[in-house]
Amino acid sequence: MSVTAAQGFTAAGIAAGIKENGNPDLALVVNDGPRHAAAGVFTSNRVKAAPVLWSEQVLKGGEVSAVVLNSGGANACTGPKGFQDTHATAEKAAQVLEGHSAGEIAVASTGLIGVLLPMDKLLPGIDKAAAELSAHGGEKAAIAIMTTDTVHKTAVVTRDGWTVGGMAKGAGMLAPGLATMLVVLTTDADVDSAGLDEALRDATRVTFDRVDSDGCMSTNDTVLLLASGASGITPDHDEFADAVRAVCDDLARRLIGDAEGASKDIRIEVVNAASEDDAVEVGRSIARNNLLKCAVHGEDPNWGRVLSAIGTTGAVFEPDRLNVAINGVWVCRNGSVGEDRELVDMRYREVRITADLAAGAESAVIWANDLTADYVHENSAYSS
Amino acid sequence: MSVTAAQGFTAAGIAAGIKENGNPDLALVVNDGPRHAAAGVFTSNRVKAAPVLWSEQVLKGGEVSAVVLNSGGANACTGPKGFQDTHATAEKAAQVLEGHSAGEIAVASTGLIGVLLPMDKLLPGIDKAAAELSAHGGEKAAIAIMTTDTVHKTAVVTRDGWTVGGMAKGAGMLAPGLATMLVVLTTDADVDSAGLDEALRDATRVTFDRVDSDGCMSTNDTVLLLASGASGITPDHDEFADAVRAVCDDLARRLIGDAEGASKDIRIEVVNAASEDDAVEVGRSIARNNLLKCAVHGEDPNWGRVLSAIGTTGAVFEPDRLNVAINGVWVCRNGSVGEDRELVDMRYREVRITADLAAGAESAVIWANDLTADYVHENSAYSS
Repeated sequence: MSVTAAQGFTAAGIAAGIKENGNPDLALVVNDGPRHAAAGVFTSNRVKAAPVLWSEQVLKGGEVSAVVLNSGGANACTGPKGFQDTHATAEKAAQVLEGHSAGEIAVASTGLIGVLLPMDKLLPGIDKAAAELSAHGGEKAAIAIMTTDTVHKTAVVTRDGWTVGGMAKGAGMLAPGLATMLVVLTTDADVDSAGLDEALRDATRVTFDRVDSDGCMSTNDTVLLLASGASGITPDHDEFADAVRAVCDDLARRLIGDAEGASKDIRIEVVNAASEDDAVEVGRSIARNNLLKCAVHGEDPNWGRVLSAIGTTGAVFEPDRLNVAINGVWVCRNGSVGEDRELVDMRYREVRITADLAAGAESAVIWANDLTADYVHENSAYSS
Repeated sequence: MSVTAAQGFTAAGIAAGIKENGNPDLALVVNDGPRHAAAGVFTSNRVKAAPVLWSEQVLKGGEVSAVVLNSGGANACTGPKGFQDTHATAEKAAQVLEGHSAGEIAVASTGLIGVLLPMDKLLPGIDKAAAELSAHGGEKAAIAIMTTDTVHKTAVVTRDGWTVGGMAKGAGMLAPGLATMLVVLTTDADVDSAGLDEALRDATRVTFDRVDSDGCMSTNDTVLLLASGASGITPDHDEFADAVRAVCDDLARRLIGDAEGASKDIRIEVVNAASEDDAVEVGRSIARNNLLKCAVHGEDPNWGRVLSAIGTTGAVFEPDRLNVAINGVWVCRNGSVGEDRELVDMRYREVRITADLAAGAESAVIWANDLTADYVHENSAYSS
């Protein structure tokens, strides 16, 4: 399963000693071909980690033969030495795997910002991981990239003779552009890098880009899609894009479901917006409102905080035409008091907020989490 | 003191029964002249409370003879009935005070959004407050506008023969444009409404607008400046503007110092920015980063989260030239590891973060708070 569900891929996940607690911390994903087409999407944060800068360059060639991923250190804000370390990682993998150049090896890192990676442990770890490469190694690879994740995250969609599978990590610093995450998707469909790129961008735009756990944008976000072509099948583009989106959607939902300290997953649907951009802007503003996030944690259908968040946006709407439903109860109608808030049942983990802008026909869904004391504890008690 | 420090003003604060717990909840501030010049600044939230819509109209005339303020209910998102209630409040005050029209009575409300005010209690409260009007009533008025504030907030600056004084409330939903607050400033200087307006806008731009406790923007923010002219002195404009700014700065600092659940006041100074706008944008981005706010709560000098926040902005900077100091220790230099983070002492309530963009000569200071479990508890345990 995971990144080895598709034919033509092997993977491994091992403990290289990067994490002090001895947990798995190094993953290797290898595309055995025959094709090595690839596409990638990276953080839009202008402060980018060394592996992001490296992998962006690699992806420009449209070919990736392997990905080295580590947890236990983000290798971000580490200066020229950090970049040299990423380069050395790719060189080492190219040497161990044989027949590949470092320019085809993508690298991704996650963990604390501002600390150099222990290369004396990481480089030997690549030898160890290469020795354990297997067509059943996907689960172990998914486990090795976990940081504060409580579960590893994988997803697979199989269509007529071809498959898209993937793994993801991410539990904090989840926000658009993208959620803080490392994601590797693989497929045995025979698709060129341009086709992969289009499918991947279309998918991330409506999945990972619409996950906003805590409004914080990472320096390390990386989503890669690798195609081996091993199935020998070239699917219809729309069908392929749909499969990629389905896997991304599944993984994005798992990220929200495992967000640090969260007790609620909040599905924010903005409807009747004048444009999709308006719908996304309003959805994000609601998703990032700390007071609302606290209210949801307290199971309080505090729709005034929803209106207050909508009011900070530039979207097209009239305040006295806004409607808001929480878990299906229209507690706000025409910008004022609607149905009895006592009717809202917020006991379950999923909470649905619908904001009706009454200004058009477009819509968007943003996923967020509540704000909890556990989130504060987890993010104040130790550096991450 | 407070709003009655300046000559020509009387005030009162009483319990009208709007708050169920019987605490003071209605304040009245009256300008006895001879001049009734006034200026006001209001929330930039597009969802505005009824009293904001009302008072914006009143201020267009440039004259305010009295202000009625209530806690215990925001009268926001209350539809046409809510606006009628504000109108009735102004009419009642005009009738009780005699010789004034409702069009000169400003109204401000604070409390839960989406609930109609109990007018059967509020209107008789105006009679009661009018009966208690006194040149020593400023403190009681400041107490009557408190919501989750733990202390009432007042400030006074006296210059050669004239005074600027004021009161403020606000403890949550503190964010620019403006912090969630009601503020009434009074002066006995003889300044016309245009002069008041210029001084007030200049002051709020660099004080209340740069306070960002929790990133949430209120529907009710109101800052009023009333001049009685009772001193008979017309100060130099710059000197007057400086006094108004000093009072605003003092009150803004008190708001941050009493923010809901906060354990730290964070002074974020952005220096060497290409423009003041850049400095403010970067300061706000740092101020709103929940992960950083948690780290400060945990007394963790996590400068990586500062860089991550800077990276989300559009400001002019090069990632490898950024420097960050926490409490005077330059923990990040040139976008990478700087001085030993162990040197940073974060035990005290005030934490100073300096972000050096190395891109110009402009600067700005933003004040924020940490994110704590107490904040979550206070904002999830009850509706506010």
